[in-house]
Amino acid sequence: MKYCDGKVENIKIAYIGGGSRQWAWGFMSDLILKDDISGDVYLYDTDYAAAKRNECIGNLANTAEGAKTVWNYHAVETIDEALCGADFVIISILPGTMDEMESDVHTPEKYGIYQSVGDTTGPGGIIRALRTIPMYEEIALKIRDICPNAWVISYTNPMTVCIRTMYRVFPQIKAFGCCHEVFGTQKVLIEAMEDILGIKGVKREEIKINVLGVNHFTWITDARYKNIDLFPVYREFALKYKETGVIRPKTANWNKYMSFLEKVKFDLFLRYGVIAAAGDRHLAEFCPGDWYLKSREQVEDWCFALTPVSYRRETYAQRDEKAKRLCAGEEKFVIEPTEEDGVKQLRAILGLEDFVTNVNMPNKGQISDLPYDAVVETNASFCSGSVRPVCAGALPMNVRSLVAGVSARQEMVVEAGLLRDPDLAYQAFVSDPLVRLTPDESKKLFDEMINNTKNYLKMYKI
Amino acid sequence: MKYCDGKVENIKIAYIGGGSRQWAWGFMSDLILKDDISGDVYLYDTDYAAAKRNECIGNLANTAEGAKTVWNYHAVETIDEALCGADFVIISILPGTMDEMESDVHTPEKYGIYQSVGDTTGPGGIIRALRTIPMYEEIALKIRDICPNAWVISYTNPMTVCIRTMYRVFPQIKAFGCCHEVFGTQKVLIEAMEDILGIKGVKREEIKINVLGVNHFTWITDARYKNIDLFPVYREFALKYKETGVIRPKTANWNKYMSFLEKVKFDLFLRYGVIAAAGDRHLAEFCPGDWYLKSREQVEDWCFALTPVSYRRETYAQRDEKAKRLCAGEEKFVIEPTEEDGVKQLRAILGLEDFVTNVNMPNKGQISDLPYDAVVETNASFCSGSVRPVCAGALPMNVRSLVAGVSARQEMVVEAGLLRDPDLAYQAFVSDPLVRLTPDESKKLFDEMINNTKNYLKMYKI
Amino acid sequence: MKYCDGKVENIKIAYIGGGSRQWAWGFMSDLILKDDISGDVYLYDTDYAAAKRNECIGNLANTAEGAKTVWNYHAVETIDEALCGADFVIISILPGTMDEMESDVHTPEKYGIYQSVGDTTGPGGIIRALRTIPMYEEIALKIRDICPNAWVISYTNPMTVCIRTMYRVFPQIKAFGCCHEVFGTQKVLIEAMEDILGIKGVKREEIKINVLGVNHFTWITDARYKNIDLFPVYREFALKYKETGVIRPKTANWNKYMSFLEKVKFDLFLRYGVIAAAGDRHLAEFCPGDWYLKSREQVEDWCFALTPVSYRRETYAQRDEKAKRLCAGEEKFVIEPTEEDGVKQLRAILGLEDFVTNVNMPNKGQISDLPYDAVVETNASFCSGSVRPVCAGALPMNVRSLVAGVSARQEMVVEAGLLRDPDLAYQAFVSDPLVRLTPDESKKLFDEMINNTKNYLKMYKI
Amino acid sequence: MKYCDGKVENIKIAYIGGGSRQWAWGFMSDLILKDDISGDVYLYDTDYAAAKRNECIGNLANTAEGAKTVWNYHAVETIDEALCGADFVIISILPGTMDEMESDVHTPEKYGIYQSVGDTTGPGGIIRALRTIPMYEEIALKIRDICPNAWVISYTNPMTVCIRTMYRVFPQIKAFGCCHEVFGTQKVLIEAMEDILGIKGVKREEIKINVLGVNHFTWITDARYKNIDLFPVYREFALKYKETGVIRPKTANWNKYMSFLEKVKFDLFLRYGVIAAAGDRHLAEFCPGDWYLKSREQVEDWCFALTPVSYRRETYAQRDEKAKRLCAGEEKFVIEPTEEDGVKQLRAILGLEDFVTNVNMPNKGQISDLPYDAVVETNASFCSGSVRPVCAGALPMNVRSLVAGVSARQEMVVEAGLLRDPDLAYQAFVSDPLVRLTPDESKKLFDEMINNTKNYLKMYKI
Repeated sequence: MKYCDGKVENIKIAYIGGGSRQWAWGFMSDLILKDDISGDVYLYDTDYAAAKRNECIGNLANTAEGAKTVWNYHAVETIDEALCGADFVIISILPGTMDEMESDVHTPEKYGIYQSVGDTTGPGGIIRALRTIPMYEEIALKIRDICPNAWVISYTNPMTVCIRTMYRVFPQIKAFGCCHEVFGTQKVLIEAMEDILGIKGVKREEIKINVLGVNHFTWITDARYKNIDLFPVYREFALKYKETGVIRPKTANWNKYMSFLEKVKFDLFLRYGVIAAAGDRHLAEFCPGDWYLKSREQVEDWCFALTPVSYRRETYAQRDEKAKRLCAGEEKFVIEPTEEDGVKQLRAILGLEDFVTNVNMPNKGQISDLPYDAVVETNASFCSGSVRPVCAGALPMNVRSLVAGVSARQEMVVEAGLLRDPDLAYQAFVSDPLVRLTPDESKKLFDEMINNTKNYLKMYKI
Repeated sequence: MKYCDGKVENIKIAYIGGGSRQWAWGFMSDLILKDDISGDVYLYDTDYAAAKRNECIGNLANTAEGAKTVWNYHAVETIDEALCGADFVIISILPGTMDEMESDVHTPEKYGIYQSVGDTTGPGGIIRALRTIPMYEEIALKIRDICPNAWVISYTNPMTVCIRTMYRVFPQIKAFGCCHEVFGTQKVLIEAMEDILGIKGVKREEIKINVLGVNHFTWITDARYKNIDLFPVYREFALKYKETGVIRPKTANWNKYMSFLEKVKFDLFLRYGVIAAAGDRHLAEFCPGDWYLKSREQVEDWCFALTPVSYRRETYAQRDEKAKRLCAGEEKFVIEPTEEDGVKQLRAILGLEDFVTNVNMPNKGQISDLPYDAVVETNASFCSGSVRPVCAGALPMNVRSLVAGVSARQEMVVEAGLLRDPDLAYQAFVSDPLVRLTPDESKKLFDEMINNTKNYLKMYKI
Repeated sequence: MKYCDGKVENIKIAYIGGGSRQWAWGFMSDLILKDDISGDVYLYDTDYAAAKRNECIGNLANTAEGAKTVWNYHAVETIDEALCGADFVIISILPGTMDEMESDVHTPEKYGIYQSVGDTTGPGGIIRALRTIPMYEEIALKIRDICPNAWVISYTNPMTVCIRTMYRVFPQIKAFGCCHEVFGTQKVLIEAMEDILGIKGVKREEIKINVLGVNHFTWITDARYKNIDLFPVYREFALKYKETGVIRPKTANWNKYMSFLEKVKFDLFLRYGVIAAAGDRHLAEFCPGDWYLKSREQVEDWCFALTPVSYRRETYAQRDEKAKRLCAGEEKFVIEPTEEDGVKQLRAILGLEDFVTNVNMPNKGQISDLPYDAVVETNASFCSGSVRPVCAGALPMNVRSLVAGVSARQEMVVEAGLLRDPDLAYQAFVSDPLVRLTPDESKKLFDEMINNTKNYLKMYKI
Repeated sequence: MKYCDGKVENIKIAYIGGGSRQWAWGFMSDLILKDDISGDVYLYDTDYAAAKRNECIGNLANTAEGAKTVWNYHAVETIDEALCGADFVIISILPGTMDEMESDVHTPEKYGIYQSVGDTTGPGGIIRALRTIPMYEEIALKIRDICPNAWVISYTNPMTVCIRTMYRVFPQIKAFGCCHEVFGTQKVLIEAMEDILGIKGVKREEIKINVLGVNHFTWITDARYKNIDLFPVYREFALKYKETGVIRPKTANWNKYMSFLEKVKFDLFLRYGVIAAAGDRHLAEFCPGDWYLKSREQVEDWCFALTPVSYRRETYAQRDEKAKRLCAGEEKFVIEPTEEDGVKQLRAILGLEDFVTNVNMPNKGQISDLPYDAVVETNASFCSGSVRPVCAGALPMNVRSLVAGVSARQEMVVEAGLLRDPDLAYQAFVSDPLVRLTPDESKKLFDEMINNTKNYLKMYKI
């Protein structure tokens, strides 16, 4: 890797989960649009064929319309090859298959527990975490041994648990979790400004916020545009739409299984006075189960969707087809920049641009009332060779009891994963606010979910 | 107050809530049995007649069989008279009347929320706290102004909230909360030793424990007798009796409304590996509502009782009668020492004896993972002029998420009380693990309970 | 104050110490060069005539060549008039006169204690602090009562003590200390890059650093340009010039009483492995007195200067003359932008630009091993309506013992000032590393310095 | 080890440094006087002959007049044999020989640095620490591998550094440092009570104190007898004797090289308002060198002694002779109980007695303003199977800057020892308040002291 004439060349990126049908393509698009960085991307995936297809697709991207630089893609058969000499490691893996996800999301429904996403918290999030932790443990050990100075950007859910696992295993790792959920709330603030103040054309990055919490359950305590305080604006907006939600024209990407109208967000804001900053589908899962996820009807009343795994299977298959078509030259690779900050972060670390954005990192004081070293989400200052969290202060007292409990249970789950101790994981499970069951029932559900996914839990004392 | 020849004389005690029909009499008994302390007790109560009766009863105690010293009792009409020159302040008040308690305990039942005690946590505990905080605020301000150097021993529930309120209002106060619930668990350990090891005749004080948590939701992480580790003993005991509970012969004091057979305690121990150290009726109220308090049937299965307020009214009336008989000389005052540590603590502070026992005080590091200044319960070293908490370490990870949430909500309730802000109290209420309701329902319940007790909430912005 | 079309208008600035002959003029220049801000500056000074002169000079600046906006200057007779309605408060005062400074700097010389600056630490810094604290206390109380939401930028030394005083008095104040000493070290890094790597034309802002410590005794633990690590570069540079120092061509502004050749800086770097980031004259004063300030000869060996107060008197008089000439129209106001960040910070707070720079603020976790709330210097993220410290980590262990002692003594001095307790100040004085005296001698020196400056210490119990 | 009928039998003690001519004999005396404990003591020493002699002496103690129990002593040739199955490990070693101590104490005198003891802090303490750390590292690793559950009581100086080393190497170790220096100050308080109040016959244990700091530099913030506050008493006493010191009749044990008259203690008290709680010879070494140790004359003025190593050699030889006579039966073993708390602590841990006394342990919150995990000295509650520090609060602000610096340098020295990095040790050395030298001079002294003791520093990168 070398800096020369305003550009950085010969960057080496290891992409773990490099067979990805979605994140990888977006990342390729984002990379190809920056003319001051170039190098090689090594794709590693347990599904080597998928990685090989992405090698083909990535290399095609170099010739796509609008490409501004060149990145060479290489599928590799071992993680060691990918990591060797890496400057950056990108991790976006699916822990298990759609079958395990099916169990995570839908088994609890038999017990009256509904999950809108099921990959972060609640029963599904916990069981998924148990699968994921040993994988991240292995990856972190490899990074320690092969490329200890590499920067590691992780996208996998449950994000907090993944990042924490890596730091537990290799405390000197330079890793952070990257998530766009907060961006969505910045966009709602833009909608509020337009609706209430009539100010148009504002970009997301211009909405300045102070954000703190844990991934998918973050809170904005200060929001401004120029010198305008957006809290009164947001309050007016929330009051205006708290009953109906924000009904927007349906875009091409819209789908009924992922949609929500911000009613959960408004309800939380009007109760707590701070802005819950994630999609309603995520927010609802962190709250006591009777609030928004008591029944399918209640979910409907709050105008958000439960995402069925059947839908995920379907889109997954569609993307598989698309991958084949791209490789076969039957479809052209079209550069579609994502709204993720990953490539921007990478450039900032290379010293090409400075900025402040939200990340997930161990707490080194950025949140004064969550435990030191627990993984939290706040803004961080990105600049040459460094990602340093910005002090976000203390959680507002009224949301602290909610967030502190989440964080404490996440720590238990990580410990359970590292100790391969399902009992400890159950102790987190039984206290999850979505689990409104007697201990006997919750044990039965837990055991069933473990059993359903046992192919990926062989290292546990079960 | 003066030390002379191994005795301390002219001690002045202010007793707030000095009309008490139960605590006060026990305290009188405990005082009269120590031959090295003597002085005056000033009884203040909003019910002056009751204080006056206790003046009479207290003075009678001096001539009771077994009395070893002399204490002069004086009912006073103002709190200022009681506090003036006080060396010690005892506080044991009933915040409101049985009518308010009726609402606290039984209104939530209409919403399917059962409370076994209803004075510490859950809906009843929160509403009771709102009544109590302004009273304790006023008392603490009086102490600050009149007797800032006095030692303050408080018995009122919700204890954590009361102690925290006093320290918020007057940070230099020398106050702590005194509670005997942990003692009960030490006695269960003695039963376990007898049952499992055949060791008899052990005294409560000989059971050495490390205890930490918040009042009525404390945990023992280490328990020993001489050099015997009692954890394996307790485990065997818990396994033996987890189905039946510990069935004991009924004593004279036994009553069905206060009874429990330790099944909740055993269940928590077998799940978490540390000993929950309070009566089952209290422990159950801090856990998610589906665990032990889902329905009357579930309560019965767990072999503990819901204490109806009607029962409290009845015993209250009986004690009233007894007070009258005592004053009228129709019944003799019989010295009945309590198992409370209050008088022992008072003597230790006077330099007459050292010991270590559990107290409720602001966290100054004694629990490393609860917030600084939150009121917590641990052991403390009592000796001349000082009560210093013993470092109890961190909460075991698996109970931390439960306890941390409790502590965070208690802080909210204190803040709500000091700010006279019922909304903030509701934000704690809605997150209480006993409250398994939709936000709408919980608001309705909250408003109903507030309305029922509004006579004592006039200072709030309602 | 109003945002409109990319500009903020009607900004109101209160300038305390508005008679300043140096900082004020620089600030005027910086203000007039930004076309997107405009408003009024209210100049308050205990020397009203000086404020009046600056009113005249400031208004002349509007018509100077290169002026891009308009600011109206108003001298006011009371601090209340200045603060009323202020959006920003600038404070740059001289606590006392040159006579007091004469005593601060030169009295200790009789005891063999040499100070190169004498306004921050050491005997001079401590006595100056005692004068300054009551002034800042009064200013902070005025801000609390008159313009509690204003942003306060303070330039006065001793800076740490001034900022801490304001937060002690009014904890909700939005104040920070602004200092350019770190910038000087960034420029040395640029020199190193040019000398060692041959890279030219780099701007100060492009040198990315992590900085932490207390004002004038700060340390850089990470320094980069693009993706180049500057530590090896700086090491080579330090080794090359550690004997001779960095000898530079003398500029117009150069003067022998302020000069230094970085030898102290290199010595500290080569011992500790982290970059001391202030001028050598400041750094030397924080170190044990035998290291660099043992004698005039030793100072000469280390190639830095002791600044005599006679020199300060002289330049002060020259500037006074200049002020008169400017007001009389005998000399034209020439816009000379400073290298201070003050106006840049002001614009950032107004939402017109984001950036990260070093500031002095209470520790909210930005330095993990200095006490919470002590005033420390680190980077902070400036953006719309907020200044949030960036987590700088822990002090390197080997400099921690030096910095922690400084910070602890600063806390003592603030306490001494607020309590008006010279004894406590003496307890800091006697432990200062520059004070290598027996307790008797140090008490004599302390008393002499207090006596010399007693006109400004009338509020103390002396 | 077994509890039976109020006694604990078959206790196994490993004594590292078991050839000791002083501590060991005292420990034997203390052990033999307690009728409820018995077992075996395994003596390990690098000087096996000395251990063998102590085996003989220890076994003779069983038949001495006044013996109340039986302990069997066994000299062993390896540390492993000593540790195998140990319930307790006692460590009291001499790191190096009198030759190394000669260099530690007297080499600095050539540079004008006088040390009264030279084994804890200052140049001598630091160099001694470098020898000691690798020894304690090895011992701790052995304990981890052989008897991880044993309780470890360490007496070696520098005590803080020894304890910290063990916890760094094996964090789960149950170790603490035991020192009687604080007891001496309790006795001074008794003298004060007698002199000022006329109260006689008070025992040391009856003086209740709150003590905090680091070993040999501890501070008492509260001292009481019964309900009498001893601070005003001590103040009167200090004022009365601050010029002359406390001149006492010379006892048999008195020697001019160890004596002191409390003048340093009084001076520190009158300056800081809290009671410095160690012998003057120790206290002086932690203060800036100009205060009490500037010259031999100054030491004489302050009425304490510099202990020459020649004196230590002499008494060492005398004790060697005595050991031989004892073994040869030429002299009878006389039981002479020490004033150490070691055996009392051991009994408390066995559950035979509870008490509170001062110990040296990692900071777990007992001192709120020293770093977590740094080794500190405070009271601790000893009872069955546990030693738990008592929360001692924060250091008074005015001594914090002194103590915090000491603690920070101790941490550096431990790190230097564990990393075998003499440079880092020098960085602590150069900042020591006794070292009033230019960096060049201090480096020369450091190198000379390292060279003098290089036989014991072979593992370092020198």
